[in-house]
Amino acid sequence: MVTILEGRTLATQIKNKIKKEVIQLKENGVVPTICVIQVGEDPASTIYLRKKKEFAQSVGIKEISLRFSQEITQQELIDKIKELNADAAINAIMVQLPLPQQIDEQAIFETIAPQKDVDGFHPYNQGKLWQGDSQIMPATVRGILSLIDSYELDLVGKNTLIIGRSVIVGKPLASQLLARDATVTIAHSKTQDLSAITKKADIIVSDVGQANLITSKMLKQGVVLLDVGINRVNGRVVGDVAFEDCKVKASAITPVPGGIGPLTVASLMEQVVILTRIQKDDR
Amino acid sequence: MVTILEGRTLATQIKNKIKKEVIQLKENGVVPTICVIQVGEDPASTIYLRKKKEFAQSVGIKEISLRFSQEITQQELIDKIKELNADAAINAIMVQLPLPQQIDEQAIFETIAPQKDVDGFHPYNQGKLWQGDSQIMPATVRGILSLIDSYELDLVGKNTLIIGRSVIVGKPLASQLLARDATVTIAHSKTQDLSAITKKADIIVSDVGQANLITSKMLKQGVVLLDVGINRVNGRVVGDVAFEDCKVKASAITPVPGGIGPLTVASLMEQVVILTRIQKDDR
Repeated sequence: MVTILEGRTLATQIKNKIKKEVIQLKENGVVPTICVIQVGEDPASTIYLRKKKEFAQSVGIKEISLRFSQEITQQELIDKIKELNADAAINAIMVQLPLPQQIDEQAIFETIAPQKDVDGFHPYNQGKLWQGDSQIMPATVRGILSLIDSYELDLVGKNTLIIGRSVIVGKPLASQLLARDATVTIAHSKTQDLSAITKKADIIVSDVGQANLITSKMLKQGVVLLDVGINRVNGRVVGDVAFEDCKVKASAITPVPGGIGPLTVASLMEQVVILTRIQKDDR
Repeated sequence: MVTILEGRTLATQIKNKIKKEVIQLKENGVVPTICVIQVGEDPASTIYLRKKKEFAQSVGIKEISLRFSQEITQQELIDKIKELNADAAINAIMVQLPLPQQIDEQAIFETIAPQKDVDGFHPYNQGKLWQGDSQIMPATVRGILSLIDSYELDLVGKNTLIIGRSVIVGKPLASQLLARDATVTIAHSKTQDLSAITKKADIIVSDVGQANLITSKMLKQGVVLLDVGINRVNGRVVGDVAFEDCKVKASAITPVPGGIGPLTVASLMEQVVILTRIQKDDR
């Protein structure tokens, strides 16, 4: 029997846990606060930011939205972030991607103080992930780990395949699966004969953005499938995994939607609480 | 025919390149300078440090040795490193491992200013490696890449297996093989059925420290073997790969000694020149 990995259910549990933690923090006079920066008015970003705002409000996290014009210069944005770094009332800083062309994303990642880096994109935090300190990590990575923990999926010594090598998911996730003693393979668009690799995998995480990339004939019996892909096909949202086809062969599989997706916002807000605690302990 | 990957020959070429670059820097009034810190008197470290000193002298790099007593406190060592960070005449700082028990290695790695971090162990620099900036990296990783480049080994889409997950070799090397479009697998002591994985690999890098770990029956025809292991067996130095047995099956193989080993010191001194240039450009 295949287990459907219910990210939505877990997201609700995480939400309830955050609520309790926020109450505790507030009892100690601390209001966890995230500042979200949007540049321009990308409609997809606006929808996503509204979701974050609603989630923050529902758990008692204070959310401050700053919106700048599409024409802001890199230096202006950097100066604004430096102000937020210095503001003790702000625990977490998030800059919504994509940014306009005149701004170098990497320069922005590196401007956010590492201890306020809620997205976990700062090279210092990414380096720490590879050196055994897992406090600060990208939200999607935290969500995947929470799902793995929640269903007690065994990673030790397992052949784990990550398809996709982004700084946001694939690479930092590799660090964490390795830290949990999985054997980790990172595949990507240049990989030759993906199917030969998927057939050997005990656990596959796909973050490509290509519907039907993974089909059952590429899999071994009993594989665990964690699908990060979000693709729109004929008005429906689907993942990278051909769900109906693959669920027959898998021992566990995430649905799309309702798998990793709902965990991302929940995990981001969990990270706000973690950052707040780190800063409180440092005082 | 198997190609023997002659690290020693390449190390001499790198040495000559460094010499020229040091002359250029000196013509511009800059003397590339490394400060090497030893704590205590570990005999193996002393031998290794003498090698570094000799290499530095032979290429015109100024080497300053500082030796502290085994009893130095962590704070004393940190204060000393901070002095060196602030000293514009020092371009590179190296702390020889191992350190005595009272000192947390990680705290020391993080004290060295990233732009003087000649070993590339600072989390900021390790994070940068995963984000596409390959200027500063551990010496062994640089040595392996130089060997790959020198022999024009093709990595794109190849199944590359790294055995060993240290912060010094395996993990940062994974970042660089991935950046060169290899499909990368990281295996380690918890990996189940290593042999099944080695058989699929086009390129294997072993950094375990176990003689005869890799034998020919674990390999596919034409594999490239890069052996970082250094093991003493009956008074002889050997690698992780059973050389005579495996060279029949491999298309290319490093000898031990004379493969990766000689490249490490050369690559460290290459890194001193790189750091010096970065600091000079920043002025």
